[in-house]
Amino acid sequence: MYKLFRQKLLQALSIGLLSQLAWSQPAIPPSIEPMVSTFPSGSGNVERWGAIEIKLIGPAEGNPFTEVVLSGRFSQGGRVVEAAGFYDGEGVYKIRFMPDMVGTWYFETTSNRPDLRGKKGSFNVMAPTADNHGPVSVRNMYHFAYADGTPFRQIGTTSYAWTHQGDALEEQTLQTVATAPFNKLRMCIFPKHYEWNKNEPLLYPFEGTAPAKWDFTRFNPAYFRHIEQRIGQLRTLGIEADIILFHPYDKGHWGFDRMPSGADDRYLRYVVARLAAYRNIWWSMGNEFDFMTEKIPTDWDRFFQIVQAADPYHHLRSIHNGSILYNHTKPWVTHVSIQSGSAAEDFERAVIYRDIYRKPIVFDEVKYEGNLPQRWGNLSAEDMVLRFWQGTIAGTYVGHSESYLDPNEIIWWAKGGVLHGQSAARLAFLRKIMEDGPADGLDPIDKWQDYPFAGKRGQYYLGYFGRDARTTWPFELYKAELKDGMKFKAEVIDTWNMTITSVDGVFEVKKRGNYLFADKDGRSIALPGRPYMALRIVRLP
Amino acid sequence: MYKLFRQKLLQALSIGLLSQLAWSQPAIPPSIEPMVSTFPSGSGNVERWGAIEIKLIGPAEGNPFTEVVLSGRFSQGGRVVEAAGFYDGEGVYKIRFMPDMVGTWYFETTSNRPDLRGKKGSFNVMAPTADNHGPVSVRNMYHFAYADGTPFRQIGTTSYAWTHQGDALEEQTLQTVATAPFNKLRMCIFPKHYEWNKNEPLLYPFEGTAPAKWDFTRFNPAYFRHIEQRIGQLRTLGIEADIILFHPYDKGHWGFDRMPSGADDRYLRYVVARLAAYRNIWWSMGNEFDFMTEKIPTDWDRFFQIVQAADPYHHLRSIHNGSILYNHTKPWVTHVSIQSGSAAEDFERAVIYRDIYRKPIVFDEVKYEGNLPQRWGNLSAEDMVLRFWQGTIAGTYVGHSESYLDPNEIIWWAKGGVLHGQSAARLAFLRKIMEDGPADGLDPIDKWQDYPFAGKRGQYYLGYFGRDARTTWPFELYKAELKDGMKFKAEVIDTWNMTITSVDGVFEVKKRGNYLFADKDGRSIALPGRPYMALRIVRLP
Repeated sequence: MYKLFRQKLLQALSIGLLSQLAWSQPAIPPSIEPMVSTFPSGSGNVERWGAIEIKLIGPAEGNPFTEVVLSGRFSQGGRVVEAAGFYDGEGVYKIRFMPDMVGTWYFETTSNRPDLRGKKGSFNVMAPTADNHGPVSVRNMYHFAYADGTPFRQIGTTSYAWTHQGDALEEQTLQTVATAPFNKLRMCIFPKHYEWNKNEPLLYPFEGTAPAKWDFTRFNPAYFRHIEQRIGQLRTLGIEADIILFHPYDKGHWGFDRMPSGADDRYLRYVVARLAAYRNIWWSMGNEFDFMTEKIPTDWDRFFQIVQAADPYHHLRSIHNGSILYNHTKPWVTHVSIQSGSAAEDFERAVIYRDIYRKPIVFDEVKYEGNLPQRWGNLSAEDMVLRFWQGTIAGTYVGHSESYLDPNEIIWWAKGGVLHGQSAARLAFLRKIMEDGPADGLDPIDKWQDYPFAGKRGQYYLGYFGRDARTTWPFELYKAELKDGMKFKAEVIDTWNMTITSVDGVFEVKKRGNYLFADKDGRSIALPGRPYMALRIVRLP
Repeated sequence: MYKLFRQKLLQALSIGLLSQLAWSQPAIPPSIEPMVSTFPSGSGNVERWGAIEIKLIGPAEGNPFTEVVLSGRFSQGGRVVEAAGFYDGEGVYKIRFMPDMVGTWYFETTSNRPDLRGKKGSFNVMAPTADNHGPVSVRNMYHFAYADGTPFRQIGTTSYAWTHQGDALEEQTLQTVATAPFNKLRMCIFPKHYEWNKNEPLLYPFEGTAPAKWDFTRFNPAYFRHIEQRIGQLRTLGIEADIILFHPYDKGHWGFDRMPSGADDRYLRYVVARLAAYRNIWWSMGNEFDFMTEKIPTDWDRFFQIVQAADPYHHLRSIHNGSILYNHTKPWVTHVSIQSGSAAEDFERAVIYRDIYRKPIVFDEVKYEGNLPQRWGNLSAEDMVLRFWQGTIAGTYVGHSESYLDPNEIIWWAKGGVLHGQSAARLAFLRKIMEDGPADGLDPIDKWQDYPFAGKRGQYYLGYFGRDARTTWPFELYKAELKDGMKFKAEVIDTWNMTITSVDGVFEVKKRGNYLFADKDGRSIALPGRPYMALRIVRLP
């Protein structure tokens, strides 16, 4: 499904229409206020969960970033949504809005400046087009869905600094993700300074002089417009942008990891005002947040609270650990973003996070497929795929990245480019299996011990045997929701070779012992004695 | 060490002095008020972390349990501690107190009744005797210590209803624990009604008629005095009493699992007033709390808060799960009490709880050694011991129990009696190893992956290979706190056969690669190719 959809961007790339995909591109006469434009067409109409932008001309003198307060009040019927505006440079102010209902919306601006205050207008919101399912939020405690109810089965990847590599490489990265299985991409707002990624970005987020002399009270709008263009392109591709707001891969080189707290807070509000209207935004307060030695624990609570208060759409919010976990039970955390080298290697480890947090678990970093000397970057493709499957049967979600050494130091994990590994194709195969599974998500069938099945009790069972190269599996299902006489069809799945083989016949179950229902004739399913095998067992009507 | 200490109780049991060990036993003339008595001697003196009891005569009419408010204000220098009193029946009121400082303490009573108000006195507190280390609290985030600084290495067991079985069996249970390795015993206040434990208790906690017609406003003091006698005996044995305040093994049979909330709260305050002065108390709000279908989640928060507010000594507080975990990050939870059949089978599972909660982790229920048809009660002794070792090298603590079928239905897990299994001896062996280890507790050396060592970096390493029947271990230690030239001695430990074998020679380490220090001559340690082997590696001065 998503492949067809992604044709669009590939076409756009090939015929040079990329510029049409950016927020700021439509030419709008500056004399007419307020101007309402939509993304990406620039026409007067907008679709549900699309976005509109109100453009206003105001003061350019003084410091508009700190001195001007602007927001829009959007209403439809009894519903009112407030969205903050922002200064986009050269006397231009913008208020962005993502309408979540069809029909006519009205707006009025408020500001501490008379020339920006009381501007009114309206726009009509149409039904969403086929590939627009709205923003993603939590569903069924442990899972995700788009606003229109479509399940979102997270298959993530990470490319921290891909938007800071120049157009050629960035467009190559977009071409890569257009045909890759990933529906979420983790990426940083700030540039990254780290081994294999010491190149300076083309733009900087603040006015000033590189590397470390900045006026933190003045943003560089061009920097943010560029990132927005890339986020918009991901939106077109149906890819969620997991925006990392702070990270430690700076260590004072630019100093964006050690700004004064007032600058941190203003930065967060500015980013939220600019980006929140993109339906594909997720907020990650920090990556390896505990490695940011200049921050204190309560800073992160405050960041969450600022983003939560500023974002009218309640996009998903989390934070990603280095060694020390954030307390994800705090109410502003919507889902759990974990780094662990070992957790997703074993479904009985992975499920612990789910049991404790009672929120969706995303193992965003489980080591990377690659060949770096560092132990976090030399996973085999088999081990990467195994982690996705173990995480899946634990009722959790996993993230991919690649870290293969490259003569030009273009490593996917940092800069994007192309994929060199063998896991992505298998993750596409897994994604298809997830999409064909129950809409409510996959939940562990029996968490007691050594029962590697997730699914929906009584209906659907997905089992995975990992490195266990067994030759048979006795047809035994955990008792919950089963009754004597229920009938099932089974398929053997080779998760590495990407084959699905139907098992002959129908299995009819009968209670056996305290805990199980087994095939009434005591039959087993033959397995090929290879690792990485799975079973799909579906109840017949 | 603890064996010598336990001789005392065995002697007491054999010469019939058991009655001297109970709180309520010393004969005190009722005419003199306030009477101050101590436990266990009844003399006028008390030791630090011992306990005193002030006895007052007051109204017996009406309902003293609900109508009379009584407390004592205990002071020494600038320090003031308030302790609630309680009605002990027949016109007798008591206030109990555990002094935590030596020297002269003064007290004065307050009450809503004039005849109980303004009673004053003083008593002198002496240094503790050798086996009294004070109450246990959290130390070093993940560990425990007694108040005098002595580390507490938890080796727990469970016998839920041992105090409701009559004197013969209860005294046998005391004889058993006196020579067993356990320094903590989980036990219920309320009686238990469950498979293999359908016998009625000899006493009931409330006035009324069994099985289910109770006046929840009137306690039965004899019921609590009996439990106190047993807790006092555990104290003498150096065993912490992990008191389970509520449990689901009632299902309305008596209805103690479904009292009105006012009765729940009054019960908690009564129990805390009676028991908190025992230094060996831990509070467990509930066992399999989520199986108590008549309670709602916020009830448990309230119970914690009531106990926290009522207990002047801040004894340890936790709650034990069935299927659903309590949010142990809440501030009133001092340590984490977990049921999981699988977590402690793998140190990389066990450590996840530690990482998330950042509190001491006690896996109080990891299945039981036994042969029940239920899957939670048929662990082999080897698997029980393995769980203790895996938990230990994860920097956590584990609990034991036994569930062997018995012709008289006397199963340790429910009723106590004698131990039939093979794990307890191995747990004594483990306890000795823990006691010989670093005072700060055992922490994982390197949590990255597949590194089964805990200890203290640079000083002490305890490794465990579980079921991995390897024949050799290359001498490689994780780099933290190491320098070239450091020297170590090694011992091979057979955790099942309980042998410790010194490895010839001294190992001198040298940095190798990104993460390790190895023996400079590349030596390995030979292992016997059996499962359940461990290594102890200690730095030489």
